[in-house]
Amino acid sequence: MIRRFRPLFALALVPILLAATQTGEAAAAAEGVRTEHFFLVIIAILAASKLLGELAERVGQPAVLGELITGVLLGASILGVLPMEGPIHEVVELLAEVGVALLLFEIGLETDLREMARVGGAATTVAMVGVAAPFLLGFLYWMMVEPTIGTHAEGVTNTLVAIFVGATLTATSVGITARVLNDIGQLHAPESRVIIGAAVVDDVLGLVILAIVSGLAAGAALSVFGIIMTFVVAVGFLVLAVILGNLVAPRLFGLIDQMRVRGVLLVAAFSFALLFAALAGLAGSAMIIGSFAAGIVLSSTNQFEMISDRIKPVGDIFTPIFFVAVGAGVDVHLFLPWSDRFSIPVLGVGFSLLAIAIVGKVVSGYSVGWGRRKLHHLAIGVGMIPRGEVGLIFAHLGLSRGILSSEVFSAVLIMVIFTTFLTPPILKPIFQKVDHANASPSAPPLAEANE
Amino acid sequence: MIRRFRPLFALALVPILLAATQTGEAAAAAEGVRTEHFFLVIIAILAASKLLGELAERVGQPAVLGELITGVLLGASILGVLPMEGPIHEVVELLAEVGVALLLFEIGLETDLREMARVGGAATTVAMVGVAAPFLLGFLYWMMVEPTIGTHAEGVTNTLVAIFVGATLTATSVGITARVLNDIGQLHAPESRVIIGAAVVDDVLGLVILAIVSGLAAGAALSVFGIIMTFVVAVGFLVLAVILGNLVAPRLFGLIDQMRVRGVLLVAAFSFALLFAALAGLAGSAMIIGSFAAGIVLSSTNQFEMISDRIKPVGDIFTPIFFVAVGAGVDVHLFLPWSDRFSIPVLGVGFSLLAIAIVGKVVSGYSVGWGRRKLHHLAIGVGMIPRGEVGLIFAHLGLSRGILSSEVFSAVLIMVIFTTFLTPPILKPIFQKVDHANASPSAPPLAEANE
Repeated sequence: MIRRFRPLFALALVPILLAATQTGEAAAAAEGVRTEHFFLVIIAILAASKLLGELAERVGQPAVLGELITGVLLGASILGVLPMEGPIHEVVELLAEVGVALLLFEIGLETDLREMARVGGAATTVAMVGVAAPFLLGFLYWMMVEPTIGTHAEGVTNTLVAIFVGATLTATSVGITARVLNDIGQLHAPESRVIIGAAVVDDVLGLVILAIVSGLAAGAALSVFGIIMTFVVAVGFLVLAVILGNLVAPRLFGLIDQMRVRGVLLVAAFSFALLFAALAGLAGSAMIIGSFAAGIVLSSTNQFEMISDRIKPVGDIFTPIFFVAVGAGVDVHLFLPWSDRFSIPVLGVGFSLLAIAIVGKVVSGYSVGWGRRKLHHLAIGVGMIPRGEVGLIFAHLGLSRGILSSEVFSAVLIMVIFTTFLTPPILKPIFQKVDHANASPSAPPLAEANE
Repeated sequence: MIRRFRPLFALALVPILLAATQTGEAAAAAEGVRTEHFFLVIIAILAASKLLGELAERVGQPAVLGELITGVLLGASILGVLPMEGPIHEVVELLAEVGVALLLFEIGLETDLREMARVGGAATTVAMVGVAAPFLLGFLYWMMVEPTIGTHAEGVTNTLVAIFVGATLTATSVGITARVLNDIGQLHAPESRVIIGAAVVDDVLGLVILAIVSGLAAGAALSVFGIIMTFVVAVGFLVLAVILGNLVAPRLFGLIDQMRVRGVLLVAAFSFALLFAALAGLAGSAMIIGSFAAGIVLSSTNQFEMISDRIKPVGDIFTPIFFVAVGAGVDVHLFLPWSDRFSIPVLGVGFSLLAIAIVGKVVSGYSVGWGRRKLHHLAIGVGMIPRGEVGLIFAHLGLSRGILSSEVFSAVLIMVIFTTFLTPPILKPIFQKVDHANASPSAPPLAEANE
């Protein structure tokens, strides 16, 4: 039952946004964060993201799209509630990291290790094809088309630029897809497990590529040993985390079961998720892989249901902050014809990279699932499309070393923005078809059968 | 049933603490907050506070005492996990503010406005006596004893110092007491309502005193108009917040009831609490008074139970951060004979102020409750003892204007520390007697009556 929804009430947000900007200016003048300002920023993030999330759902889109748009609106290039530097930016970024760690922890809690192992082969294939295809396509595009936007530092060959551009196209950002799958209740579809698994493998491959391009950027000769070590550390951490975690968690949480102080189970689970994330980061891997592993480990403990139940409200507060922060990174000036940052050639290269980014990952979906139990190729491929922070890390590295011009960096940014914003509206209808396909071979629902 | 508790497992915390310190040094060197470091600090705060909270409860103390001690241990003067300045300090302080706002919001949710109104007269009396008595005692102590510790700026009369010292003794910090009453399940005792109500009134009086001493510090003549305005704004905000809130909240939350996006009710309640806190702060009042008012307003909505249920886990994460941050403010060097900050005269003045702080508030408990329905005087008086941030604000103001020497500031700090740490262990046994007294006039429990 859908009742009338009056978004006019949203006008109440206007004074909050104004106050957030005003106190921000006052705080900036005083060179510190006023607590009132921080509170108003958090309120603006949360209230606006729920409002736009609701509107997104009302028009048949996943809520996360509303949160991303909230970020664009609050970001530095429109309302300026979320600046791109300074203390408020730093605090919001840290809370956003907690948010995405909790999201992957929740996804991990829902993930059964044995089911993951069952799709392990398919996931690895998808990841490898999904890294190789966009890299090669991007590399060839740059070598053959030789787009002339911006100027690179002296002595930088077009081949080096092409390698960097290829690298920015490789790594999937699992956050968006995981959130969409969660929003539409499809986290347990076989396709979803392949996507999540592939994104994890993809992340490991991304680290290896990062090691390679970092070496190239520093002008160092490629060390095969270094590359292997990166790979071993990343894989080793994951395996060790899950094995040791499975040994320690039952004892630890058995002990916590005997504690009586309020909130101890929730705090223990929260700390566990953050600890694995921090350890993953310190081991040179992506932090969210760590919190995902923490979720997998705790999914087999006795307190699984209580943990899941209590971590959800905490995630509800932190997770939107992540997606709003992602949206806030969008520089709308790139798309405004009257802005001095607007450039047709940059947009042209950006959309070419976008096409490559989409094709490269969609192809990966067709690399598996032709066997007995058919998988929906397009669903997997589209699920792998979103690029995020890893691609931007590559681009930043290239920019800071003078290998990529700021124009090429902007083009990469356009590619990342569109893969992020296009995936939710595309993925949802495709998965509704998957749902249908998965359901059809089994018996019809009981209610229908009885009629 | 109390099972064996093995705190040896706590040794697992040691590497986390070490890592938190190490990454902190690395981050400081890189002049930024590494996310891994932030995560480790949060883990250290939460895990240690739950562990020591559990130990506190096992030895019959409220859990909050364990959290305060956690803060002392993690603080700058012992382990240094929580520095007193820099980006980590700022982030932790902001999260601590969210924590105390949520605590007072929860207390407000449990508070019935009509019941509060019923104890309004008693609460006002307690607040006024509890502000006047310690101020006068402190003022007279300083004028008569004329302790000679440190040197004040030139032209500062002993009378002015005495006024400042008196002012630091006035304002109760409601957080500690509210938390203890919550920990021991006594939030609904009549004495508890008097304490909470008195602490709110006390805060308003504190603002008036702050306006007066700020004027004195600036060397301005006392403006009766200014004092009245401060009073009107503070009282006006509270009244307006509750009245307007009661008008708006049912409509707003009726609307939210029609929204389907995940977590919308929790996010709305959380934002409401933070918004009232920010508005209170911007109106010149204490932020926690605002979130307390928000809780009172929402306690009368239909969704009250769901709000209470979902905000609790979020509070479980944020609230310990506040008490740990309070504990981290303790400078243990003041009490270490081998430290150069150790000084017998400072300790002497500090403990004199402590005695005045205790006597002044205990007296206030005896100013009410002699009527038909007897109140436990000592329980009320002891509940008002904790001093906190407001007293420190006065002391800081005096220090920065050269009115108080750093030695007098340290003595005030000693008073604040001990009122904070002594209240939980004293308040708990007293309230157990109150419980007994409250229960005795009524019929014996059913189980006993049946035997």
